[in-house]
Amino acid sequence: MAIAPTPPTPYYAVIFTSLRTEGDQGYADMAEAMVALASEQSGFLGMESARDGVGITVSYWDSLASIATWKQNSAHLVAQRDGRAQWYESYRVRICKVEREYGFERP
Amino acid sequence: MAIAPTPPTPYYAVIFTSLRTEGDQGYADMAEAMVALASEQSGFLGMESARDGVGITVSYWDSLASIATWKQNSAHLVAQRDGRAQWYESYRVRICKVEREYGFERP
Repeated sequence: MAIAPTPPTPYYAVIFTSLRTEGDQGYADMAEAMVALASEQSGFLGMESARDGVGITVSYWDSLASIATWKQNSAHLVAQRDGRAQWYESYRVRICKVEREYGFERP
Repeated sequence: MAIAPTPPTPYYAVIFTSLRTEGDQGYADMAEAMVALASEQSGFLGMESARDGVGITVSYWDSLASIATWKQNSAHLVAQRDGRAQWYESYRVRICKVEREYGFERP
């Protein structure tokens, strides 16, 4: 997983922060499938993800419409349902407009 | 590290995504000190952080003005300078307006 190369602002970010239940219960396979599926969606710009106690996945999108379409994707709806049923103790989803961006690359 | 309890939207998020250089070189102490110092700033609402290859730290703020003040904090400026000198291979900072939020808690 690397830093997502995103376009000039403005664009949108979905910050998904979660705490997992114990055990895998098919979670790793689902997570991999959802990353692959999200990457194929219209308007997808990139994704960054890390887990270390809390899990943080940030996906980047061109518009709120693209985010809404992904939320309603049928395979994603199944993953959301299973997530609430077994994989997550709790989560927050924050939908954000990225207004400014800057960075650093070691020369 | 837990999920940050944030207020009703809108508020602001700073997504800091980074790749580290090899070795600690004082990084862990600095990171801990910066979390403590950020938490004392006016307008600070919460923070979430995970590293797993890529590091993602999201801090939440009440306004763009509070974010700008924190960026100019003198101890934080030193940490930013040292980060570019030694701790980070690369990073991106994305300043976002959180427009919508929802979540789930296991009953």
